[in-house]
Amino acid sequence: MLHILFFFLFALSLSTSPSTSNAAVNDFCVANLKKADGPSGYPCITPSKVTASDFVFSGLGVPGNTTNIIKAAVTPSFVAQFPAVNGLGLSLARLDLAPGGVIPMHTHPAASEILFVVHGKITAGFISSAANSVYVKTLKKGEVMVFPQGLLHFQINAGMHPALAVVSFNSPNPGLQILDFALFGNNLASTLVEQTTFLDDAQVKKLKGILGGTG
Amino acid sequence: MLHILFFFLFALSLSTSPSTSNAAVNDFCVANLKKADGPSGYPCITPSKVTASDFVFSGLGVPGNTTNIIKAAVTPSFVAQFPAVNGLGLSLARLDLAPGGVIPMHTHPAASEILFVVHGKITAGFISSAANSVYVKTLKKGEVMVFPQGLLHFQINAGMHPALAVVSFNSPNPGLQILDFALFGNNLASTLVEQTTFLDDAQVKKLKGILGGTG
Amino acid sequence: MLHILFFFLFALSLSTSPSTSNAAVNDFCVANLKKADGPSGYPCITPSKVTASDFVFSGLGVPGNTTNIIKAAVTPSFVAQFPAVNGLGLSLARLDLAPGGVIPMHTHPAASEILFVVHGKITAGFISSAANSVYVKTLKKGEVMVFPQGLLHFQINAGMHPALAVVSFNSPNPGLQILDFALFGNNLASTLVEQTTFLDDAQVKKLKGILGGTG
Amino acid sequence: MLHILFFFLFALSLSTSPSTSNAAVNDFCVANLKKADGPSGYPCITPSKVTASDFVFSGLGVPGNTTNIIKAAVTPSFVAQFPAVNGLGLSLARLDLAPGGVIPMHTHPAASEILFVVHGKITAGFISSAANSVYVKTLKKGEVMVFPQGLLHFQINAGMHPALAVVSFNSPNPGLQILDFALFGNNLASTLVEQTTFLDDAQVKKLKGILGGTG
Amino acid sequence: MLHILFFFLFALSLSTSPSTSNAAVNDFCVANLKKADGPSGYPCITPSKVTASDFVFSGLGVPGNTTNIIKAAVTPSFVAQFPAVNGLGLSLARLDLAPGGVIPMHTHPAASEILFVVHGKITAGFISSAANSVYVKTLKKGEVMVFPQGLLHFQINAGMHPALAVVSFNSPNPGLQILDFALFGNNLASTLVEQTTFLDDAQVKKLKGILGGTG
Amino acid sequence: MLHILFFFLFALSLSTSPSTSNAAVNDFCVANLKKADGPSGYPCITPSKVTASDFVFSGLGVPGNTTNIIKAAVTPSFVAQFPAVNGLGLSLARLDLAPGGVIPMHTHPAASEILFVVHGKITAGFISSAANSVYVKTLKKGEVMVFPQGLLHFQINAGMHPALAVVSFNSPNPGLQILDFALFGNNLASTLVEQTTFLDDAQVKKLKGILGGTG
Repeated sequence: MLHILFFFLFALSLSTSPSTSNAAVNDFCVANLKKADGPSGYPCITPSKVTASDFVFSGLGVPGNTTNIIKAAVTPSFVAQFPAVNGLGLSLARLDLAPGGVIPMHTHPAASEILFVVHGKITAGFISSAANSVYVKTLKKGEVMVFPQGLLHFQINAGMHPALAVVSFNSPNPGLQILDFALFGNNLASTLVEQTTFLDDAQVKKLKGILGGTG
Repeated sequence: MLHILFFFLFALSLSTSPSTSNAAVNDFCVANLKKADGPSGYPCITPSKVTASDFVFSGLGVPGNTTNIIKAAVTPSFVAQFPAVNGLGLSLARLDLAPGGVIPMHTHPAASEILFVVHGKITAGFISSAANSVYVKTLKKGEVMVFPQGLLHFQINAGMHPALAVVSFNSPNPGLQILDFALFGNNLASTLVEQTTFLDDAQVKKLKGILGGTG
Repeated sequence: MLHILFFFLFALSLSTSPSTSNAAVNDFCVANLKKADGPSGYPCITPSKVTASDFVFSGLGVPGNTTNIIKAAVTPSFVAQFPAVNGLGLSLARLDLAPGGVIPMHTHPAASEILFVVHGKITAGFISSAANSVYVKTLKKGEVMVFPQGLLHFQINAGMHPALAVVSFNSPNPGLQILDFALFGNNLASTLVEQTTFLDDAQVKKLKGILGGTG
Repeated sequence: MLHILFFFLFALSLSTSPSTSNAAVNDFCVANLKKADGPSGYPCITPSKVTASDFVFSGLGVPGNTTNIIKAAVTPSFVAQFPAVNGLGLSLARLDLAPGGVIPMHTHPAASEILFVVHGKITAGFISSAANSVYVKTLKKGEVMVFPQGLLHFQINAGMHPALAVVSFNSPNPGLQILDFALFGNNLASTLVEQTTFLDDAQVKKLKGILGGTG
Repeated sequence: MLHILFFFLFALSLSTSPSTSNAAVNDFCVANLKKADGPSGYPCITPSKVTASDFVFSGLGVPGNTTNIIKAAVTPSFVAQFPAVNGLGLSLARLDLAPGGVIPMHTHPAASEILFVVHGKITAGFISSAANSVYVKTLKKGEVMVFPQGLLHFQINAGMHPALAVVSFNSPNPGLQILDFALFGNNLASTLVEQTTFLDDAQVKKLKGILGGTG
Repeated sequence: MLHILFFFLFALSLSTSPSTSNAAVNDFCVANLKKADGPSGYPCITPSKVTASDFVFSGLGVPGNTTNIIKAAVTPSFVAQFPAVNGLGLSLARLDLAPGGVIPMHTHPAASEILFVVHGKITAGFISSAANSVYVKTLKKGEVMVFPQGLLHFQINAGMHPALAVVSFNSPNPGLQILDFALFGNNLASTLVEQTTFLDDAQVKKLKGILGGTG
């Protein structure tokens, strides 16, 4: 008689499945990056073609290359790198900071961020929009800090050794607007930069030179 | 002069319509199940091809077949069965419970549920995540019970006669994870089941045998 | 040794609970109707004071009184009647329609609606905003119809016998704006009604007289 | 040495970009109106093909034609007219009211509205669903009024001169259901209109005649 | 007989109202700014105490004072100024730009923005996070531009006469982070500013001097 | 002249602040755990009383105690432990797994989860609701896995050494329903457990004995 249970439950399960291949229940929606993005993310890969490997991302296993002027690296696992986070409302990145390393002032337009120090010492901070209040702390291994959505923030290695942090976001696509690149790394006219930031012409042109900006 | 009103209002209405066929105002978005799903649901059928029949579903008019071991049946009208609920944020199902019938322990990962007893007597309950508190009640005709999203719950016929309930969800695709099927009805290795549930090997293998599980 | 399991898991569970009474995990949020409402609903009753009875509502067990001119009744279980739906994103109502009964033209500003015919025959319809298209169908027992958020719709008993429908909403507080009451059942000046609806003065005053409108 | 900064930051920026053309970070999602709409809006145009012009809409620069019976015009910049608002959660329209002009009783099923009087004097109001309360005010230049989602509302020129208002919505596609068009401008049977609104047959037929309604 | 209709509909309306004063249906939620804010906004004023005046804000009727160095002014009607927008998901502000006026580089962490030029000529632009692309346009009277959430943007008077724009947001509380104030108008240490922006020490100290920053 | 800039911008900033202490702009909303929770979280602490320390949580800096039968520990930084995440839509936890350690089968009713292996080897998996498909992988240091909302999942130490993982959630209050506690660690009657899970009476009573369940 127990075998009837099997048949029933199998039927129960099937009855929630449609007859077309795309219409399976949407527990997840691994992004099909070859199709056009939409306001809530990418169309899904057919669920039957999804395997366990799709839910795993190995790209954060290797430290980012910090042999650069900021002595730091951001390695993201956003939807573009890790399609499985599409539609799930979160993503991750690793921050590697060599001694003296800095993640420059930036915002994530589309997400809040929470940071966990894996090793090393990191000074991190953000500035509120309300009162331009500054919230800065030096964090040690195992400490956690949260950065509210859209606010300017930064991270600096505060120790003598390399530091590693894992940061996560409540969006599969948090965005990353690095202040210097936004101001000096494109074709935004120097006069517009100066008018809207009150920076001196020499300062603007110096940084545009470094960052490849034109105009 | 009143005829001018007609022309004006016609124009007013037209002025909100685009020139391309897809761009009509999105009061509804009947799912095109032949296209790939996305994080917020399926692409819409062209509104001009939608008729009143698309908004009606007749599949719940027939009692589910309860001649099975659990003496019960769940008949869904989720997006896969009833494409009109796509994007509207709700769906429905009917529960038929013969005397002795049971809807086994399960969760809906993506929605809360509200149940209305059409006829019969049903004992229903859920378990909270906070304190593992148990909320069980026996409901009679016309009574309503609510089950918060994602929590384990069940329904049992508590009377001598068939029972019928209508349940609705705040998602067109609430999902349905039946505990026994998740644990025993697939290729999840017995050793993993045992390690993660503390169930005895004999118990696991017995239910795997019944439910068609392998490994 | 298995007893250690008990102690561990108990600790694991406790570790997710705060030390203050209000801070328990929020699986549900039964409304405290004595406190001020907010944009997402009412503050919660302390979870430890919630019992199974809070999740059950018996007010839909009795047919609404249809001995009135529209021969119909709407009995809601919205957050104001059934505080357990607060924060859960759904609610329910029952529609009783005596022979000849009508639920007049109305909207729910804050929710879509899905209707299940428990018994009887109901003609129901809605009008789209895009093209003012009309979607009307006559539904029999067990049939389901969906009404997109915010659109004008109605239900009429289409048979010789009483009809009963259960309707659910994807909001604990869907709102209910009955067209005639909005236009004729308050102090909105007749001149404003006439200017904005193109109805004749006599018609407006007649219905204001019936519905208690002034001005 | 500063040149290394350029290379680093360039790499940092690139590291967040995928290798496929569609997978760029989604700061915005200009609608591709040639593709099917979805529950959250239209698929995006490839970001690299988007230019500054896509973010600008000139269609509101010209006053609407008010030489009609209501002496008023609504000119929208919703997603169908202005694809850049797709996915950004807002849109705009201009209201032109000649002396004596009226925007008739209507709802926006999918958005709240906020109105700014650019010039002239406007009497505006809405009716609540709760208590059918009427909120009417006469606004002068520079005043702002808000209309909650889904509620019946109207605007009337209250002065001797043309009035102009800008209205914005918290949806790229707020919808617009004009009461008279919904009731009298389609094929909704007169008997259904009368049963569900309590309007007299003569009144219904008169307005159906004017507005082109059949049935 | 028609009088019975009145009694029925009155009852129908009442049946959706609770017995406690706070529990009325929530069409709107005018903020009680004396109570603590919450994640979705402020608790509501008791609906029965709300009047039409609550939905009207007159503070934008007067041009902002532009006799300052930037020759510009932002006058907001966010929730703090206009409590009626609480919970409605939108707000408004006016921008006054005297000849030569500039709204400096800034972000709104919590909302997208749509701008309508009431009079004058305005050059406006934003920078994307993806590719640091610059989208700049000069807008004339009646033109509309949209600025996606969280991205750096600015507005400059591009003409010889005063310019006025109305901007709206899809949040009652969009936030406003002005870059110069965030960097130079608080106690964020100069060394941190320099490390995270690559600006020269002299530049940082100059602007800190002007903007009142310390450290 | 530049000093005028200071005064202007100061005024601009002030103009967005209300006169009451609670009404400051809501960049963040640190939970006041002494007040009642609500559907979107706790009321905020007055922003002026918030300091940088509020945004930092040190409780994850110490390994959890794994000297228990499952040789594992979950240490959360949810809203109850870390009030700063209130309203920000995310939270974090650390998983410590001694050799042989297991995080038993569980769900998070209110969030998806993303896991980063800090050190060690972890076998993790989840079961879909659609097809009861099993997705299991063994992860090494630096690898990331994602678990969709509401689905049963588990983590097991797959190596000979202790393993540490950081997991984050897209909710400040993801919930945690451990299967064994839900079934066996409360007063849910054994007969109900057996009827709804098909487990044998002996198995149920054995685990109830261990986990302190009654009934």
